[in-house]
Amino acid sequence: MSDSDATDRVPTDRLVDLRRTFHERPEPAWREFWTTARVVDELERIGVDDLFVGPELLAPEARMGVPDEADLTEWHDRARDAGADPDTLDRLGGGQTGCLAVLHGDRDGPTVALRVDIDALPLSESGADDHTPAAEGFRSRHDGAMHACGHDAHMTIGLGVVEALADRDFPGTVKVLFQPAEEVVGGAASVVAGGHLDDVDYLLALHIGLDHPTGEVVAGVEGILAVSHFRAEFSGESSHAGGHPEDGRNAVQAMATAVQNLYGIPRHSEGATRINAGDVGGGTAANIIPEHAYIEGEVRGETTELMEHTREHADRILTNAAEMHDCEVSVTTAGEAPSATPDDAVVDVVESVAGETAGVDSVRRHADLGGSEDATYLLRHVQEQGGKASFVGVGTDHPTGHHTPTFDVDEASLPLGVAVLADSIRRLADERP
Amino acid sequence: MSDSDATDRVPTDRLVDLRRTFHERPEPAWREFWTTARVVDELERIGVDDLFVGPELLAPEARMGVPDEADLTEWHDRARDAGADPDTLDRLGGGQTGCLAVLHGDRDGPTVALRVDIDALPLSESGADDHTPAAEGFRSRHDGAMHACGHDAHMTIGLGVVEALADRDFPGTVKVLFQPAEEVVGGAASVVAGGHLDDVDYLLALHIGLDHPTGEVVAGVEGILAVSHFRAEFSGESSHAGGHPEDGRNAVQAMATAVQNLYGIPRHSEGATRINAGDVGGGTAANIIPEHAYIEGEVRGETTELMEHTREHADRILTNAAEMHDCEVSVTTAGEAPSATPDDAVVDVVESVAGETAGVDSVRRHADLGGSEDATYLLRHVQEQGGKASFVGVGTDHPTGHHTPTFDVDEASLPLGVAVLADSIRRLADERP
Amino acid sequence: MSDSDATDRVPTDRLVDLRRTFHERPEPAWREFWTTARVVDELERIGVDDLFVGPELLAPEARMGVPDEADLTEWHDRARDAGADPDTLDRLGGGQTGCLAVLHGDRDGPTVALRVDIDALPLSESGADDHTPAAEGFRSRHDGAMHACGHDAHMTIGLGVVEALADRDFPGTVKVLFQPAEEVVGGAASVVAGGHLDDVDYLLALHIGLDHPTGEVVAGVEGILAVSHFRAEFSGESSHAGGHPEDGRNAVQAMATAVQNLYGIPRHSEGATRINAGDVGGGTAANIIPEHAYIEGEVRGETTELMEHTREHADRILTNAAEMHDCEVSVTTAGEAPSATPDDAVVDVVESVAGETAGVDSVRRHADLGGSEDATYLLRHVQEQGGKASFVGVGTDHPTGHHTPTFDVDEASLPLGVAVLADSIRRLADERP
Amino acid sequence: MSDSDATDRVPTDRLVDLRRTFHERPEPAWREFWTTARVVDELERIGVDDLFVGPELLAPEARMGVPDEADLTEWHDRARDAGADPDTLDRLGGGQTGCLAVLHGDRDGPTVALRVDIDALPLSESGADDHTPAAEGFRSRHDGAMHACGHDAHMTIGLGVVEALADRDFPGTVKVLFQPAEEVVGGAASVVAGGHLDDVDYLLALHIGLDHPTGEVVAGVEGILAVSHFRAEFSGESSHAGGHPEDGRNAVQAMATAVQNLYGIPRHSEGATRINAGDVGGGTAANIIPEHAYIEGEVRGETTELMEHTREHADRILTNAAEMHDCEVSVTTAGEAPSATPDDAVVDVVESVAGETAGVDSVRRHADLGGSEDATYLLRHVQEQGGKASFVGVGTDHPTGHHTPTFDVDEASLPLGVAVLADSIRRLADERP
Repeated sequence: MSDSDATDRVPTDRLVDLRRTFHERPEPAWREFWTTARVVDELERIGVDDLFVGPELLAPEARMGVPDEADLTEWHDRARDAGADPDTLDRLGGGQTGCLAVLHGDRDGPTVALRVDIDALPLSESGADDHTPAAEGFRSRHDGAMHACGHDAHMTIGLGVVEALADRDFPGTVKVLFQPAEEVVGGAASVVAGGHLDDVDYLLALHIGLDHPTGEVVAGVEGILAVSHFRAEFSGESSHAGGHPEDGRNAVQAMATAVQNLYGIPRHSEGATRINAGDVGGGTAANIIPEHAYIEGEVRGETTELMEHTREHADRILTNAAEMHDCEVSVTTAGEAPSATPDDAVVDVVESVAGETAGVDSVRRHADLGGSEDATYLLRHVQEQGGKASFVGVGTDHPTGHHTPTFDVDEASLPLGVAVLADSIRRLADERP
Repeated sequence: MSDSDATDRVPTDRLVDLRRTFHERPEPAWREFWTTARVVDELERIGVDDLFVGPELLAPEARMGVPDEADLTEWHDRARDAGADPDTLDRLGGGQTGCLAVLHGDRDGPTVALRVDIDALPLSESGADDHTPAAEGFRSRHDGAMHACGHDAHMTIGLGVVEALADRDFPGTVKVLFQPAEEVVGGAASVVAGGHLDDVDYLLALHIGLDHPTGEVVAGVEGILAVSHFRAEFSGESSHAGGHPEDGRNAVQAMATAVQNLYGIPRHSEGATRINAGDVGGGTAANIIPEHAYIEGEVRGETTELMEHTREHADRILTNAAEMHDCEVSVTTAGEAPSATPDDAVVDVVESVAGETAGVDSVRRHADLGGSEDATYLLRHVQEQGGKASFVGVGTDHPTGHHTPTFDVDEASLPLGVAVLADSIRRLADERP
Repeated sequence: MSDSDATDRVPTDRLVDLRRTFHERPEPAWREFWTTARVVDELERIGVDDLFVGPELLAPEARMGVPDEADLTEWHDRARDAGADPDTLDRLGGGQTGCLAVLHGDRDGPTVALRVDIDALPLSESGADDHTPAAEGFRSRHDGAMHACGHDAHMTIGLGVVEALADRDFPGTVKVLFQPAEEVVGGAASVVAGGHLDDVDYLLALHIGLDHPTGEVVAGVEGILAVSHFRAEFSGESSHAGGHPEDGRNAVQAMATAVQNLYGIPRHSEGATRINAGDVGGGTAANIIPEHAYIEGEVRGETTELMEHTREHADRILTNAAEMHDCEVSVTTAGEAPSATPDDAVVDVVESVAGETAGVDSVRRHADLGGSEDATYLLRHVQEQGGKASFVGVGTDHPTGHHTPTFDVDEASLPLGVAVLADSIRRLADERP
Repeated sequence: MSDSDATDRVPTDRLVDLRRTFHERPEPAWREFWTTARVVDELERIGVDDLFVGPELLAPEARMGVPDEADLTEWHDRARDAGADPDTLDRLGGGQTGCLAVLHGDRDGPTVALRVDIDALPLSESGADDHTPAAEGFRSRHDGAMHACGHDAHMTIGLGVVEALADRDFPGTVKVLFQPAEEVVGGAASVVAGGHLDDVDYLLALHIGLDHPTGEVVAGVEGILAVSHFRAEFSGESSHAGGHPEDGRNAVQAMATAVQNLYGIPRHSEGATRINAGDVGGGTAANIIPEHAYIEGEVRGETTELMEHTREHADRILTNAAEMHDCEVSVTTAGEAPSATPDDAVVDVVESVAGETAGVDSVRRHADLGGSEDATYLLRHVQEQGGKASFVGVGTDHPTGHHTPTFDVDEASLPLGVAVLADSIRRLADERP
């Protein structure tokens, strides 16, 4: 069967090396300087027909959750010091990271796109002996940053798919998107606004793991929670905590009241919701009544409506927690993504291809994500333009949950991901389901 | 009257220049590298008989609230870059800052000591047009650090007193202590343990402002609150906030519960107590259930017993807030100081001298501090050794409260402080009250 | 079709009168004295073959959520004053309420049971003009008690079914259970322990409304949440709030901390959970530090495991909220019910019968309850004994939600309920599916 | 000395009997039906010149904290059943309790008033063997009510003073006020408005205990905290806690948030403040999202300004806690009293008399109350009219604190109180200090 050819041309060793290289240098959202440069290096090695980098890909005003200049400069300099190609770095001004590779097939046909994401999480990786990256020497070199959600594997598979399709033996056009800033649900909207997906007929988005073991493929992941990330800044007034406690307007009290009540937003009978105050802080010293505090948090819902309902509660809580302590609060949306549903036509193809792929021993038509993904912006956009899309899960044994310091992937899943996705892309291009 | 001579030898212009120089380069507790070097420069210019710097002054194991190595290195390097004397910097290893100047009088007599403190607060200074340091160009050059409690004035007055007494025309010995790390109530205990106060007969400690106007002097400040600074570190377990919220053990929920309940510790009928969660934080990203969180806080009491009673409540709250959310917590004491009471014999002298000092138009025998001060360690130690002590307040018009971003002092109070203290020292040495 | 005969023998007017009579005299759990006496009156009027009342039906030690003696006496006396049959009242010692009617068919066959519940809620009924019971004069006569969940209709339908089957023209035995104390999930376990369901081959449990309109029937209600009701009693120490606040150990602070954190128990990715602190109180007077406080609350889960997981969180929160404020807490389980699933064989029959019933214009095989019901004890018990069971929903237009002061039922649904259930019982008895 | 005559005419046995009689039948604020009737009986036995009862004494519209009709009726009926004089009961319509006795001296002179209070607390008395009232058979017969602040002794001493002065051998007029509703700080304002104190030249108010031992007298109690009692009623919306938690607007969550934050109101550097949420409740059943909740609480301050500052915080917290949970709240003031200061002229007299009284072995000119008292309304009113006043403390050994279930008084202090007060009244009348 020709399908097996796809992976034959991408040696597993190279995939493993690539993934470990990425794993060692995790970069959080909009700071993927070294990462983008490394992806561009590989794409140029393989040879692609078009390559859109950073500002050529994105609409900058639609980006969400962009860090401040100092933060960007620090990561930019670190990438340069680590040997990233200076020419590519020059093309990533202001944290406009990510890229899109285009391959033209040798005959006419539809446009099929694959999206992988490239950013890491602000989490310190475990150094435990039984954590493979630590034991085998490719643990994160960046304190406080970690590929704890498998985006290192996503990029690797994305590059493997480009290489597998480098023969151009397919009809139409293939676009492979290396998207920045997924973890802050801040990147996809600016990709949509950039226009490169306007002509896409079929879109596949990839996620590895999700509690599915190596050898299992989910053809159409459902239950992708709509999400909204917010940042609340509380302002009060400082004063001497011993001498004049009554003169303070305590922003930390306001923040703590908000945290307590955010987690208490009522459950909803129509579906799952989520709430998290994931990054909080406030005050400056033990003996000063705190003037400032903040919450970076998120709400999610099984539908966009459920997310928005929860967000309304959150906004009311943040406002009143501030007023209760005579403080002000400003709440901004740092990222947002709707829910989305895969199309049967695309799910059919992936299900069928996966069933024929050597090494895949379990194919599930649907499973719930239980998380969020700004890929939903991409799916919805393609669907609104008349195209069809699916969010594909490629199983991998992972010892602990996503977003934990001991998360890891089973590298045996890398060639399986390449095979299933490259062949699904060929089949979609061929069959026009 | 000979008293007026004292200040004649210390021009007001020099005091103002010195104070502004210190104001521009605030350094928080145990990071007073540039500051100590600058004080040493001045002392050497004036000429003193003995000078104990850093480790020669302190017992290192008795220090509290010392920051980590990276933090110390950053401030050390900054001091070096700002031109601090490299020889002095070499003597301040590991953040052992501060110094003690000794002057021997021209005849036998008692040992009289003055203590001033030198550290700044972790607070960003206002840049408003009506804030004099901003308007006149000596605003803090260090973002996030500020002399917001007048220690810049304290050092200046301390140096002025040394200069005023440089004639050695007094009996006995004078020691002027430039103490580090008062704001974290972490420095005085290690000065005591260092032994340089063991032979002190009379001790004066200085504070400026405290809501007293320029021209007012408080001979014996009372109501110094006992204080304990603590740091609580909460540890839980991270997990994906969308995919597996139930797997998390949320350290931020624990922290917020603790903050809410710390401020709710009951008032006490036997005297004032204070509580503050002045610096808090936790978590890493909006979509990760927070694994870590912390509170830097303090409790105070009008007596040591009231402080300890409040601290017991705080400890119980921290422990149970952690357990409630299936987290662990470790609580350490970052600094601590008892309450203390001035001695009438010393208060008498200061009251009398102040009443005779030109420019002093209001003398109060006693007033309450309403705050804490680790000077209490020094007062208690001297008293336990058979000496006598007082905590002296020198009024200064200040536009806003201590520990606020717009705190400032009226520089007209600098020569008044020098005069009152230098003359009180002479009188104590002479009269042996 | 013979089915229509069933309801012909039970005039709608009588059903409406009965329902309104019950509606006017709501009695909460274990206090259904007047209610039981009235049901017994009706059953005796119709004529049944066996009748088990109160202690003859229940195993008293398995009852949960029984009120104290004074409370029982108050309701007992009120029932007597309202004209309840003294002989029946004598049979309901200690709040052992409810009854079971038995009809023997005229030929051999299986035992088929129907369960309806009879207790009211502790809620004050609306007096608004547009609330039909208020407008038409049958609003609750008992302040603070209300049939706000349709149990008045359940009993009415139960009696209608007895009357419809009074011809004994069916094989085997029919048992109709009028169960007390459903709202506190406290009655079913003691019915099971009483043994009267041990020989049941088919069990139907009824609920009206549940957001389904008049004319709709749900053959097998699913998604019945497992539930646990708890009562937490906090004990501290009182003191004079002005004179000695520090001597108090504040049970209300402990309770409020618990409430805040109970609602913050994390959501679970494996299914719906619920938490409610539905009845709380504490303290005695504004100027006394509160010595006592309590929470009556509940947790639920889509599965028994999810409920138990949430309950573990709740227990840990209650314990630590008490300890945090130096209080004690005792937590008791006031009622509990597992989840349960209907059997296809019984669902098939109800679905088929409903489809043939005049007036039923929508039949749904399944729908989610989204609530809890101690009927699950009965379903599980019958299933464990080898029988089969279903929980049947009979739609009724209701202007506002269950458990609200303006809840009401559409009385047109009463004869539909009688028809569907009586005919389903006949069919189950006949066909032995 | 003639002073000893005063008490000779009031046998100690009678005082002890009276106090125990009152102790057995405690009646909370505005419910002192039996108590007033009993006091009137005694006054008529002794013989007074004028007697103003209930509505003759009070301005009804100025009463605060009056309970509802049902509550009043219950206590009225209980008083009747306990044998209270029906004629007196008839004069106490609507809970207008209390009375004022007038004695005219045998010669011209000033008007001197004594105020004692008569209400009990809503607290259950201890039944422990080592609690004297339990051991000796005069424990409260009213569950949930207790004389836990010594008002039983106050009334007894007040009656003793009337008896001691029954000889009319003094100049001017003596008024003895038996004031209702002190514990809710709700009675004094309506006494002031009633006008009977407008002509008073000297006023003494009495309190027993206050941590002073038997034999000690405080001539002028200071530090009486200003106080404000409030009642906050939260209204949300109920819903089924399992079926539709999202439809609820949870009044108990709002209340718990308020409680947590009320106790966290910042301390004040200018003096003591207090806060208590002393009586709270909400909701109806475990499975209903709570629609209603309430807090009965109080704030206090060392000055009226400190109290009002704390009250502003409380109001803001209550408002925002409600809005945070989409609820409404109404906050009413249930009672209020300012701070007040005794006059030296009256303190001098009491100090002098106490020093001459047999059995008094310690006289303190001043001591702090640390609590509140609506006697301050009376003191302030007399002072504003040009009169002079003091709040007198009569020590008594009490095993545990005021407002606790084991509070008790040492009956040996009863004749001491009568002697000091009766003689102070005579001296004030005579000397016109």
